[in-house]
Amino acid sequence: MNKSPLILVTNDDGMNAKGMETLISVARKFGDVVAISSREPMSGMSHAITIKVPLRVKLVEDEPGLKRYITNGTPVDGVKLVFNSLAERKPELLLSGINHGSNSSSSVLYSGTMAAAMEGAINHIHSIGFSLLSFDPDADFSASAGVAEEVIQAVLENGLPDGICLNVNIPAIPSEKIRGIKICSQANGYWKEEFEKRIDPNGTTYYWLTGFFHNREPENGGTGTDEWALKNGYASIVPINTDLTAYKVMEELRSMGFAQIAKND
Amino acid sequence: MNKSPLILVTNDDGMNAKGMETLISVARKFGDVVAISSREPMSGMSHAITIKVPLRVKLVEDEPGLKRYITNGTPVDGVKLVFNSLAERKPELLLSGINHGSNSSSSVLYSGTMAAAMEGAINHIHSIGFSLLSFDPDADFSASAGVAEEVIQAVLENGLPDGICLNVNIPAIPSEKIRGIKICSQANGYWKEEFEKRIDPNGTTYYWLTGFFHNREPENGGTGTDEWALKNGYASIVPINTDLTAYKVMEELRSMGFAQIAKND
Repeated sequence: MNKSPLILVTNDDGMNAKGMETLISVARKFGDVVAISSREPMSGMSHAITIKVPLRVKLVEDEPGLKRYITNGTPVDGVKLVFNSLAERKPELLLSGINHGSNSSSSVLYSGTMAAAMEGAINHIHSIGFSLLSFDPDADFSASAGVAEEVIQAVLENGLPDGICLNVNIPAIPSEKIRGIKICSQANGYWKEEFEKRIDPNGTTYYWLTGFFHNREPENGGTGTDEWALKNGYASIVPINTDLTAYKVMEELRSMGFAQIAKND
Repeated sequence: MNKSPLILVTNDDGMNAKGMETLISVARKFGDVVAISSREPMSGMSHAITIKVPLRVKLVEDEPGLKRYITNGTPVDGVKLVFNSLAERKPELLLSGINHGSNSSSSVLYSGTMAAAMEGAINHIHSIGFSLLSFDPDADFSASAGVAEEVIQAVLENGLPDGICLNVNIPAIPSEKIRGIKICSQANGYWKEEFEKRIDPNGTTYYWLTGFFHNREPENGGTGTDEWALKNGYASIVPINTDLTAYKVMEELRSMGFAQIAKND
């Protein structure tokens, strides 16, 4: 009999997040789980790593099939700690989330959840990030649990291309209303910030980062963006490159003014 | 007569970094500069944004052609602040760096310098990140200043494709030894961590993140990776996608096990 696969579960919403509990429960159906997260939420940490302060790790749960750690580090620190110091063997699969809130479109760039998945992919671990389109701490994760189970099953059976991880987003609607799961592209959009300027009791100005997401291609159902799929009742899967090279513009760049500076090219 | 272009200069090494001073000097040859950075270094912050604490900003220098701010925010926060609150007009160009240390290969993912450039690209500003392959606070930036000037000139003349920024790395060798500038791909490599485990005076374990970069394709001069170019005396330019979609694997994914779960696709 084969050994159970080892599955690393992490998130960026902190150790008590309902989304992570959900993902650990789903993961345990497929193998042994080693989970790591911060005590407090770490949203918006992206691919940050901790260089200036030492990392702390505490084993907070240890039962057959589940080891659980907390750390003061970022999501990416946590992944590195498990790969290099905490796990007795190499995880076969990395699952991140289920995030409370969307990581579709360009939100992927700010997301600690997706950075953890990208860190897995760089290290040749099949990696998937999951996000539910609801910030509610007590959101209903039953539909996302179902989607997660289906996607994990498919990845365990088929693997993933080298250096690629999956960005899975799930609309906040009941399971029976989800129309399916679509392979999508990252919608062209950005966060339009509106800094809220306030004055503190000492008379000094400060700002709160607020804003709203602006989709530059709202009607783009044709090429299948994640935003379009989610708005239309589908869960979306965007395959994410960890090689950021814009290959398709390399020739264009070479033929532009840059050629003149490539002295000995 | 045309108004001077407005150039946003930022970095992740803090306001006193020699690399940023160098870049501001180069930028002033091309237009008016608005500079923003943190007081202390922010290396490894990647695309992190500040959500939990308010942002502070202070104008520390205001002379003809140069406004300079410091903030407690990350490099990406700083860019957002300038775009949305501090600059009187939209910058034509964003320059980030010159970073003390390489941002080649997968280091692009951890880099606050490159995250700032990517934030610019998402907002349709021509954006370039520069890094010198030396961590020395007092490194010789004269060769990188020359490279930066040439690249900026080319970008102001030709523009950049939408959603793409440039990751420029410069070897730490004298100007006359630089063989040219090559348009490259991001080398396939990763940071192999070796956490240093220590015991503090209270008997509690802690870890320092250390490690070394491992290039998976050291001999790959054929397709022109950045690592190869830098090792061989060239400055490297990698065009960086802010759309992370792995388009080339979408069909493969659709034909794998995922099709079965795309119920109504």
